[in-house]
Amino acid sequence: MTACIDAAAWLTLEAIPGLGPDAAQRLLQAFDGPADILAARSAQLEPVVGSTLARAIVQGVDAAALQPGLDWLAQPDNHLVTWLDPAYPAALRDLAAPPAWLYVKGDPAWLSRPMLAIVGSRHATPQGLRDAEAFAKSLSEAGLTIVSGLALGIDAAAHAGGLAGLASSVAVVGTGLDRVYPARNKVLAHRLAAEGAIISEFPVGTPPKSGHFPRRNRIISGLSLGVLVIEAALESGSLITARLASEQGREVFALPGSIHSTLSKGCHRLIKQGAKLVESAADVLEELGRLLPTPLPAASLASAPIGAGDSLLEQLSGGPLILDQLASRLGLTVEDVSVKLLAAEMDGTVAKLPGGLYQRLF
Amino acid sequence: MTACIDAAAWLTLEAIPGLGPDAAQRLLQAFDGPADILAARSAQLEPVVGSTLARAIVQGVDAAALQPGLDWLAQPDNHLVTWLDPAYPAALRDLAAPPAWLYVKGDPAWLSRPMLAIVGSRHATPQGLRDAEAFAKSLSEAGLTIVSGLALGIDAAAHAGGLAGLASSVAVVGTGLDRVYPARNKVLAHRLAAEGAIISEFPVGTPPKSGHFPRRNRIISGLSLGVLVIEAALESGSLITARLASEQGREVFALPGSIHSTLSKGCHRLIKQGAKLVESAADVLEELGRLLPTPLPAASLASAPIGAGDSLLEQLSGGPLILDQLASRLGLTVEDVSVKLLAAEMDGTVAKLPGGLYQRLF
Repeated sequence: MTACIDAAAWLTLEAIPGLGPDAAQRLLQAFDGPADILAARSAQLEPVVGSTLARAIVQGVDAAALQPGLDWLAQPDNHLVTWLDPAYPAALRDLAAPPAWLYVKGDPAWLSRPMLAIVGSRHATPQGLRDAEAFAKSLSEAGLTIVSGLALGIDAAAHAGGLAGLASSVAVVGTGLDRVYPARNKVLAHRLAAEGAIISEFPVGTPPKSGHFPRRNRIISGLSLGVLVIEAALESGSLITARLASEQGREVFALPGSIHSTLSKGCHRLIKQGAKLVESAADVLEELGRLLPTPLPAASLASAPIGAGDSLLEQLSGGPLILDQLASRLGLTVEDVSVKLLAAEMDGTVAKLPGGLYQRLF
Repeated sequence: MTACIDAAAWLTLEAIPGLGPDAAQRLLQAFDGPADILAARSAQLEPVVGSTLARAIVQGVDAAALQPGLDWLAQPDNHLVTWLDPAYPAALRDLAAPPAWLYVKGDPAWLSRPMLAIVGSRHATPQGLRDAEAFAKSLSEAGLTIVSGLALGIDAAAHAGGLAGLASSVAVVGTGLDRVYPARNKVLAHRLAAEGAIISEFPVGTPPKSGHFPRRNRIISGLSLGVLVIEAALESGSLITARLASEQGREVFALPGSIHSTLSKGCHRLIKQGAKLVESAADVLEELGRLLPTPLPAASLASAPIGAGDSLLEQLSGGPLILDQLASRLGLTVEDVSVKLLAAEMDGTVAKLPGGLYQRLF
């Protein structure tokens, strides 16, 4: 769950010019981890990523370039969670091009909880801000960790609401984690790092770049069971997040508003396209309840007593759990639990749900 | 199109205690009109309507009871349009239990035009009233006659907007047409009678009765291609009209609003149940355009030059028309045009659309 063993190898891999999530994914599937990739010969790499990238990997990077990342990782509460790490969020593994690594400031365990994204306009109305905070708080109380993008407006209000509830909040940003953008959210960022998490797939030192926001948005939606949009104009980033959510098979929820408000037009378009119109937190829970046949019990998400039972099915009788929770309750490794779960899925006694949750069927 | 030939027979039939739309429909299908029904023997009537109603029909009604209706019909612009009349709106013929007759004050020709119902709360907000009037005016300009229930609030605003547009407005009331309810809408009622129509299935003298409103509502939705709800509380009559519309296969449209407004809750429920969220008149026209593959041309709905061509297909080349329009343009009787249309439908050159419209296909 904590930092990686071979951080330098991961940081090297990440610093290879032109290596994106797609190529990283192919490499990780073909080799035994980053050190193995970096030790490979060009002839081994070429069939996987082509000659240009293979050359760049063999050439490597200047060790000095890795120092800022290594320094950052040396600080407390800073982590690199990689595709090979059991703490890597199961929900992201489903994506077409999942990030190969995530920088995490805070507790990576938050990333494996059932999450709901709440996004919306940076220029929200006072009512929109109140709604975002109230929905986030209620849904966090109900056990959904609130994901958003740490922008001003709806994002910030959603994080505040999530932090005020039981299941906290996770921010996904499009910059390096040493840079909090916008600066006005610095206090909020500190609270998120302490009580939830802030994550990024971009290396330390990455400044805000408009091209990074859609990549950031796919993680916001990818981590989540659904995306709730509260106040969004047409042509806004929130609609991109909603579209990505829809493509990723996540639920899309939107708050309606006056037909005379510019900030309702984005939500209304989503509803016309099939998003669920939401008037209350119950509307969201009702829909996600169909994905999680037993309601999300706040208690099961707070730390449950460990060792209260030892069978897999017994552990799941209180409601769906994620792999990590099962492993820690059973006192087994994640790999051992994975094997048990696969057997149970094949027996038809357990089903895998979106968000990396496992549910007992019988 | 004008008053019935055998008004006394119709009024007698209607005054038979216990005779509702269902039984009337069966009688009209089994016999050659009201005089034939009233002349029938009990043994002929019984298989159609049962012994109790058969007895009541044979017994007949006191001639004095018919006088108020006959007096009302003797006044200019007052009509009784019956199931057997070509002016009877084709859209209502599809209903499970269509009214066997309609009292009409104004021009019955309005009843056969493409219509849209706009309904909503009696206690609407000022913004809701402005929206109702603006939508009604735009949609009337686009060729849709606006149907509503002549109640205070949204209904009255919708009628006013419809009257301000090209295609006018029709009110369906739940009382006798000699009684306008509520009294505050008297001026509006006079305008509707002069420039559109007010209709009722209830005889002259019928006071307001709560049980009549759902029957009234089924005519509002039944006449219309769709129902647009603007501001409605939960448990309101507007939701009943929307439900009836849905059961009758009509489109349902609803305006969204703030989640904090009681008067948006009804609309939001409809949207959740599948009604189309509407932000502009274009949203309504877009949907109805799917029913009427050629857009509704305002010009084709205003009186077109008569005798501009003589073939059925030529007349339909400018867009869909109703039977009466075709008959008057072709200078033929409705019966003759019906025969031609049936042949054309069987040839596949003409299709019948909802709302009694005929469209040229080739």
